[in-house]
Amino acid sequence: MEMRFSRRASAVKRSFIREILKVTQRPDIISFAGGLPNPASFPVADIARAAQTVLSRDGAAALQYQTTEGFAPLRAWIAEHYNREWNLGVSPAEILVTSGPQQSIDLLGKVFINAGDRILLERPSYLGAIQAFQVYEPELVHVPLSEEGLDVASLRAALDEAPAKMVYVVPNFQNPSGLSYSEPARRAVCDALRGRDALLVEDDPYAALRFRGTPLPPLRSYYGAGSVMLGTFSKTVSPGIRTGWVCAPPEIIERLVTLKQAADLHSDALSQRILHEYLTTSDTAAHIEKIRAMYGRQCDTMLSAIAEHCPSEVKYTRPEGGMFLWMTLPEGVSSLRLFDRALAVGVAFVPGIPFYVDGGGDNTLRLNFSNSDEARIREGIERLGKAMREELAAPRR
Amino acid sequence: MEMRFSRRASAVKRSFIREILKVTQRPDIISFAGGLPNPASFPVADIARAAQTVLSRDGAAALQYQTTEGFAPLRAWIAEHYNREWNLGVSPAEILVTSGPQQSIDLLGKVFINAGDRILLERPSYLGAIQAFQVYEPELVHVPLSEEGLDVASLRAALDEAPAKMVYVVPNFQNPSGLSYSEPARRAVCDALRGRDALLVEDDPYAALRFRGTPLPPLRSYYGAGSVMLGTFSKTVSPGIRTGWVCAPPEIIERLVTLKQAADLHSDALSQRILHEYLTTSDTAAHIEKIRAMYGRQCDTMLSAIAEHCPSEVKYTRPEGGMFLWMTLPEGVSSLRLFDRALAVGVAFVPGIPFYVDGGGDNTLRLNFSNSDEARIREGIERLGKAMREELAAPRR
Repeated sequence: MEMRFSRRASAVKRSFIREILKVTQRPDIISFAGGLPNPASFPVADIARAAQTVLSRDGAAALQYQTTEGFAPLRAWIAEHYNREWNLGVSPAEILVTSGPQQSIDLLGKVFINAGDRILLERPSYLGAIQAFQVYEPELVHVPLSEEGLDVASLRAALDEAPAKMVYVVPNFQNPSGLSYSEPARRAVCDALRGRDALLVEDDPYAALRFRGTPLPPLRSYYGAGSVMLGTFSKTVSPGIRTGWVCAPPEIIERLVTLKQAADLHSDALSQRILHEYLTTSDTAAHIEKIRAMYGRQCDTMLSAIAEHCPSEVKYTRPEGGMFLWMTLPEGVSSLRLFDRALAVGVAFVPGIPFYVDGGGDNTLRLNFSNSDEARIREGIERLGKAMREELAAPRR
Repeated sequence: MEMRFSRRASAVKRSFIREILKVTQRPDIISFAGGLPNPASFPVADIARAAQTVLSRDGAAALQYQTTEGFAPLRAWIAEHYNREWNLGVSPAEILVTSGPQQSIDLLGKVFINAGDRILLERPSYLGAIQAFQVYEPELVHVPLSEEGLDVASLRAALDEAPAKMVYVVPNFQNPSGLSYSEPARRAVCDALRGRDALLVEDDPYAALRFRGTPLPPLRSYYGAGSVMLGTFSKTVSPGIRTGWVCAPPEIIERLVTLKQAADLHSDALSQRILHEYLTTSDTAAHIEKIRAMYGRQCDTMLSAIAEHCPSEVKYTRPEGGMFLWMTLPEGVSSLRLFDRALAVGVAFVPGIPFYVDGGGDNTLRLNFSNSDEARIREGIERLGKAMREELAAPRR
């Protein structure tokens, strides 16, 4: 029998990163390629205690089907978290619990995107979003991202050129760049979007992981109601417990719920209860402070090793939080060729190409600092610096 | 801002059943409307023990991201289960762990269905499958289902009329009808499909819940490799732990993995480990035997109460397993009108209409027997019989 796959099945490629990760799992490779939280940060004992409490207290209720919207106390906790941190006036009815941000983005694509619809994304942009959206065959259009945030003149030009259905942004410690939007940029982006028909989608998985500088309000604070915010417990509790959320106006939640029902009925119910129990009975502030300090040290170690070992022609971002930093090689130097050379000396990263939808990014690369200890970071960057010097000295093709 | 939803968001309706369930949650209502396993059957203590073992033994590994394909030992267990039970020669590479059958069906729709593609389904058919497929805008075509199974002459006629992309069937204790395919029907359906381009999708959530008769091999035993089988732990362990699987040829698994990656990266990792620990360290055979005996008693109680209390013009199926039975009222009697009358006397069911894609089924209804104890079943059917006699005596509109 000949397989006749759908058009969308041919449109979506297997993640380049996941393919790279297979190569880089050799124990002799120091890998900055992945995007994993540091497992040393997982609250294993607290989760074990929460699991016991939930199963002994809630019994069979913890193992039964539940509503698509999510475990009600967890939805309330998430709404309250926005109100406590930023006074956003979010109600639990505006929260849909999902199986992580990847599903949140997929559901938004399902609910909003017809083939050919225009979506604006940062340049470079989060690969998972590019992949999730591509299933729905949109036109993906980049808007340049700088040290200040999304370039507002370019955003206005892109909105004027043709109507956009959606604008997808990651304002804090973006993956892959590590860049954040300044306060004026947040305000200006919202001003540019106000009165347009484009839906603002603000994905904020790393907000809690700020290890430098001052926390800035989400775009929603400037934009007002009507935008969509995405969040997750992947970086602060556990990514294996696949739980994230969408915060959106009720008429959007209603559509998302209908399509989530068709997609998987609801997210794992036992995990939602365990997570809620953990959040309400553990010292989560101290736990997050521990992660911040850990990632801050690891980022600093990487930055100082780069300053010491990498050629001065190589530019790089200095993140105030999150898990990634971004390097730009001199024009004409290929990060794909550097990748082969780096692998030969036992270090790996992600070449920048997959984060671009316009064929650019050949001279860029992403480094993850969350999932290596400081000794391996120093050693890995020293190896990378060596590979870079060789590549820069090699004849350009 | 005006919301501009996608075409597919308008194509999919919120589940009629979920809406009904809201009405029927009043404590004075005896509800046969839901589709819930009996919580008395959940192995709470064994799951609690498994959770402790996993977290204390595997530690942070149980909370980290994992591969999209699923927890490798769980994939191996599922493959081995097919080989032990039916000698199917399945390898772990043919298994993708999903967040339950609803996601399995959604992913198959994503990978195979372009708008307008033809999918053949039983008449009546599983509502969750209808909803999941509708997202991809197919042409859904019914093939009649009888006491023997899918009507093979009608299947051949439907295949001859126009090429079908997929044939979706539930051969054991189907939801909603409670009907199963006989051995000759299994063979004949496979003969009719062999050599055609239509992909055979065999959804089998209830196989383990047989309380009468002889277990029959899956269609795959007759069809040979090339078909797709769907399974779940929802009915034998816990539906709240959202874990099911697809068993399919590697080239299909490859595409499903790519689109699952874009949809949610992977299913809950902690739950997969807990489930695997439970499956390999508990007396699951004794546990399933307990569920079988319970559902068998509940089904028998419902059948004898129907014989005693319901008008003889009302026909009904006599399931050999599963969770549902199906009633057919005399032609011209509306189960929607009966629903209102039944609710007034404190009993609920699901009117049959949503299980049909051709506008039929108005005189049919589904009863669930898994989630009520025997006393409530007797009382509920007595109430239902009263409502039926009233409705049959009322002037037909």
